[in-house]
Amino acid sequence: MVEALIDGRASDCVPPDDRGLLYGDHQFETIAFVGGRAPLWELHMRRLARDCERLLIPPPDERVLAAECAMLAEGRSRCVVRISITRGSGGRAYEPPSRPVPRRILLRRPWPAALASARRDGIVLHSSPVRLAVGGPLAGIKHGNRLEQVLAAEHARRAGVDEAILFDIDGRLVEAIAGNLIVVVDGLAVTPARPGSGVAGVGLQALTERLGVILRETKLEAEDLGRAEAVMVINSVAGIRPAQRLDDRRLAIPGELRRWQRLWDELFECED
Amino acid sequence: MVEALIDGRASDCVPPDDRGLLYGDHQFETIAFVGGRAPLWELHMRRLARDCERLLIPPPDERVLAAECAMLAEGRSRCVVRISITRGSGGRAYEPPSRPVPRRILLRRPWPAALASARRDGIVLHSSPVRLAVGGPLAGIKHGNRLEQVLAAEHARRAGVDEAILFDIDGRLVEAIAGNLIVVVDGLAVTPARPGSGVAGVGLQALTERLGVILRETKLEAEDLGRAEAVMVINSVAGIRPAQRLDDRRLAIPGELRRWQRLWDELFECED
Repeated sequence: MVEALIDGRASDCVPPDDRGLLYGDHQFETIAFVGGRAPLWELHMRRLARDCERLLIPPPDERVLAAECAMLAEGRSRCVVRISITRGSGGRAYEPPSRPVPRRILLRRPWPAALASARRDGIVLHSSPVRLAVGGPLAGIKHGNRLEQVLAAEHARRAGVDEAILFDIDGRLVEAIAGNLIVVVDGLAVTPARPGSGVAGVGLQALTERLGVILRETKLEAEDLGRAEAVMVINSVAGIRPAQRLDDRRLAIPGELRRWQRLWDELFECED
Repeated sequence: MVEALIDGRASDCVPPDDRGLLYGDHQFETIAFVGGRAPLWELHMRRLARDCERLLIPPPDERVLAAECAMLAEGRSRCVVRISITRGSGGRAYEPPSRPVPRRILLRRPWPAALASARRDGIVLHSSPVRLAVGGPLAGIKHGNRLEQVLAAEHARRAGVDEAILFDIDGRLVEAIAGNLIVVVDGLAVTPARPGSGVAGVGLQALTERLGVILRETKLEAEDLGRAEAVMVINSVAGIRPAQRLDDRRLAIPGELRRWQRLWDELFECED
């Protein structure tokens, strides 16, 4: 049973001088497969190409990735494949080699547990004590430098909550640990504007571009969140999960969410 | 010839689910060994323990690290050993396991080439187009999220310079790609105050704490750098290298530098 492909070969062995390991020097995508198909494949591939370009990593051949993902997803009703494109080995310390040979690391993972109840009944959030750094060349990119998210997830685990709301150091609402946010304020569903940090999520993009849901990008702060009627977390694997609780406050689960979830399910399941 | 030790065993194989690879979820030290001895060992170990604590990674046993480094450095007049302490495998995506089992990855590297001439004649710097993000939980830590430095090093390579001066997004001078900065302004040697980003470097610490050089921490911006008489880069392996040129400007190599370099050499070589 192959669980990992490294440059196309079944392997459990990454060289210790891989730059992804040394410096987090890679881009990655975490892709949902249902019945061997990835409904959001094109959006993932578009982001992967764009982010590799921004990171100055030569992008991989999309057809090669598709064939390798198919090998990993074959025969499974649902699974997740993580693709990491590292800058490979070599170079002089931080300095990349002049002609980098990227390494493709593909990992199959099981479908997340308890997703149905999370989507139906909602998840418990807290406001993370971790504040995101602002600015720099990495904003918006799905890159391998994820220590802020790891620390926020560890704080959430210790607090016994499912997910966390992340603010940046200037007090602006940015995203969840593993997903973008939808916030209902004054009856209007909006998503935080993230100019200086956060990830441009494929799930959110699918919701607006593929499913036609209109979400204005708005600058949001703690005060806005304090009077929010509802909060939802969206990512490309888990879909849209409402928050049933944020810190000490119960939140509503809006009726509109159920319509979005139905659209999401149709996108994922009815095209088989 | 052993070049890598993973959890104490000669190996070229890191599991693809190591969190250091997935998320840059690790701390690291790059340690100079001269005649099998690491003159700055205690400073490296102090930072490693402090940074692991800040990253919520259980710190390794220092005696184990010392024994493993000795294996790698044995019989070499000079070499560099990189120690990475990753959070190991496991957990649920970003969320660490409740009882992480860290992985020790030690790599031996050759001594940097052309160091003597760089220290004598100076290196060529440019002001990097990469601006560092500000704030967040990682400031000061020697962690594995180094994409900003990788991008800055790639820009420096393309520009044909040896190193780069990094500013943050607020325009404050922070550090070099692989070292802290010493700047001589108005006849006074100072080092940039780095409250929101950068690394607390062991080389700089050795210079001030072990060699008694007094360097005031000062908030510096591009304007200060524009009237600097001299700029030096310091790290724990290369020691102190003066800049002979920064962008289009030639810089002086101060006489005081030669005294510091002698002190540094004594620390590294005369205790054998």
